[in-house]
Amino acid sequence: MNLAILGFGTVGTGVFNLVKQVSRLTEELHVKHILIRKNKKAAIPEMTADYDKILNDPEVDVVVEVLGGLEPAHQYILAALRHHKHVITANKAVIACYLQEFTQTAAENGVKFYFESSVGGGTPWISEIERAARIDDVNQIQGIFNGTSNFILDRMKKSGAAFGEVLAEAQELGYAEADPSADIDGWDIANKLCISCDIAYDCFVVPTKDLPVFGIRNITAADITAFAREGYTVKLMGKSHQEGNKFDYVVEPTLYQSNTFEANTHENYNLISLHGQTIGDLRFIGQGAGQLPTANAIIQDILDIYQSRNHLERNFKRQLTFQANLTKSNYLLRAVFNCQQIFANYAPIQQGDYLLIHQIPVGLMHSLMKKIQAKDPQAWMVNLPVAEVSKVQAKQLSFS
Amino acid sequence: MNLAILGFGTVGTGVFNLVKQVSRLTEELHVKHILIRKNKKAAIPEMTADYDKILNDPEVDVVVEVLGGLEPAHQYILAALRHHKHVITANKAVIACYLQEFTQTAAENGVKFYFESSVGGGTPWISEIERAARIDDVNQIQGIFNGTSNFILDRMKKSGAAFGEVLAEAQELGYAEADPSADIDGWDIANKLCISCDIAYDCFVVPTKDLPVFGIRNITAADITAFAREGYTVKLMGKSHQEGNKFDYVVEPTLYQSNTFEANTHENYNLISLHGQTIGDLRFIGQGAGQLPTANAIIQDILDIYQSRNHLERNFKRQLTFQANLTKSNYLLRAVFNCQQIFANYAPIQQGDYLLIHQIPVGLMHSLMKKIQAKDPQAWMVNLPVAEVSKVQAKQLSFS
Repeated sequence: MNLAILGFGTVGTGVFNLVKQVSRLTEELHVKHILIRKNKKAAIPEMTADYDKILNDPEVDVVVEVLGGLEPAHQYILAALRHHKHVITANKAVIACYLQEFTQTAAENGVKFYFESSVGGGTPWISEIERAARIDDVNQIQGIFNGTSNFILDRMKKSGAAFGEVLAEAQELGYAEADPSADIDGWDIANKLCISCDIAYDCFVVPTKDLPVFGIRNITAADITAFAREGYTVKLMGKSHQEGNKFDYVVEPTLYQSNTFEANTHENYNLISLHGQTIGDLRFIGQGAGQLPTANAIIQDILDIYQSRNHLERNFKRQLTFQANLTKSNYLLRAVFNCQQIFANYAPIQQGDYLLIHQIPVGLMHSLMKKIQAKDPQAWMVNLPVAEVSKVQAKQLSFS
Repeated sequence: MNLAILGFGTVGTGVFNLVKQVSRLTEELHVKHILIRKNKKAAIPEMTADYDKILNDPEVDVVVEVLGGLEPAHQYILAALRHHKHVITANKAVIACYLQEFTQTAAENGVKFYFESSVGGGTPWISEIERAARIDDVNQIQGIFNGTSNFILDRMKKSGAAFGEVLAEAQELGYAEADPSADIDGWDIANKLCISCDIAYDCFVVPTKDLPVFGIRNITAADITAFAREGYTVKLMGKSHQEGNKFDYVVEPTLYQSNTFEANTHENYNLISLHGQTIGDLRFIGQGAGQLPTANAIIQDILDIYQSRNHLERNFKRQLTFQANLTKSNYLLRAVFNCQQIFANYAPIQQGDYLLIHQIPVGLMHSLMKKIQAKDPQAWMVNLPVAEVSKVQAKQLSFS
């Protein structure tokens, strides 16, 4: 099969090198074109700045899109599908926004649109949701979907350093972008969770700014220390579950006890879990990013096409309603002003620097938090899973 | 597709119920026969004690073997394959012994022999080794492969109870057999590790009594307490790795620090990991046994056949040599007599009740242990991973 790679950054180079170097691939796969920017010089013969040349080359079977961003990736993917080329992409932002359109266009043109590498990097996550969904309703998804924020939280806990300091280190190591907001404010996770829900629920979840998404930008070394003293570790989680014709969806920091898999997911690893009625809980741990794991996942998709291993068909026509308040949970809130009154209906108790709020609908908590941040931009909150709350009350822990 | 189920115990019943009850399966799959013992009465019309009736029914596409044990399972599987029926089995003992024969017979008769449920229960382990092996050499496998022994170790740690007491509880709960030796002496793990190596290395590893396999029969509450005091948890592990044309293979108790995934694998869960050059470490956590997860894995194999999703082809002709001493490691040994002299070449240091032995070849340690047990049948040992040893020496820990 002949490939064209759009973009020659870290991941594009990884795909190119794997195809060249892994002997069991070189017989089957061949990179014919690499699309580079118009102002760049072609360093090797495969490189071209002319996308039409790729589209109109009947020998190209698969287009690998690793440009990132919404445009021109969106239009390039559509054009490739309409030229009857299979498309593989690692670009979670463009998939989260346009998966329905891509799926439909691919079906109309008799080609495949696959995107294993977009969530969980090298972790076989999309394929395992699809596999589980052959038998079960996958009715719960949760996980540590973002390696960069996990690296920051892990490093803060181990070193005691401040958020800004560790972020700078992550940027130096190449783990975090110059503009880190997608990673630290939860929007990268939001995209990945949307894609996961799309496949699990067969219902298209559009990533909008209205979703309950809250990140770790405001976390302090004092927060980490206070939680650690009581045996808790903070993880930035994506979570969704479905009940009947409703589902919820949230991205938020969450506290985990030290004997959980979540608390022990170190460095930039991902830990992603699904639940189905008969399979129970399945968890997958792997490198959520990085050149080789991401390139590996892209090539897995290409091999699926080569070996006619069709992925689960989804048309996203199941009627499910997003219900932000489907779940109630408990939160610890840190703000500079007294918020007791705002949460009067949810048994607020001051615990050191934090207000412990009980059994509040998750969507309501997130919308109230937006109002609190309008007055106190440094305010921060963390979810405290239900099972933990009675212990906190009984022990009168001092999160201070 | 029409199925015949051989055996109607926990797993056979699970497969039957899933096919009847899961709506997305009932259209595609139908259980036509259930083989029961000659002295049993047929409670439902599908039941028969006549295997020839199943073999000679041209409408039967797939035979699901869940009898367990070596014979007649071995002969029944061969007969089904020779009658051009696909075979799915959960029977790890018979696969470990005869995988090469089954694979060859299936190929000769143009049918499939699949066995996802045999290792890791509902955890997609065999399929993920096969998937990883499409790109990488899978050169390392390790994990908690046995839910029963993990349940016992976890319960001992949490309750402080003695081995025998917890084993009796596991037997009452149906987690352990009346004869628990396969689970507690490591032979169930040995079979599962053989099957995993077969697929990962494309080389048939025969489970013989010569393999380094050591279990938890002799572990005491005092052992658990001594290790816990120093922050360690004992897990019964299966481990193998391959280098060039050699591989090693061991089943043994191993100590893990509290911040590892292994130490935090509770109850009867399985945690299984593989390593490949480009994918890095991938870990899978799920229910390693139980009616529904096992039935789920069996039906996944059936759906693969139904959807023509062919598994990786293996002929087991790669020339690899088993080398028991490929790896050196460190051990804590508890025996009633002084063993310093036996381990004089491996810097033995008495640490409380335990002799700490340094950098000894793994195969040699296991063979010396057999000799020690001839004199002290209650002697016990545990692997202490290399990274931990310097800490033990530096702190002069007292494992007493």
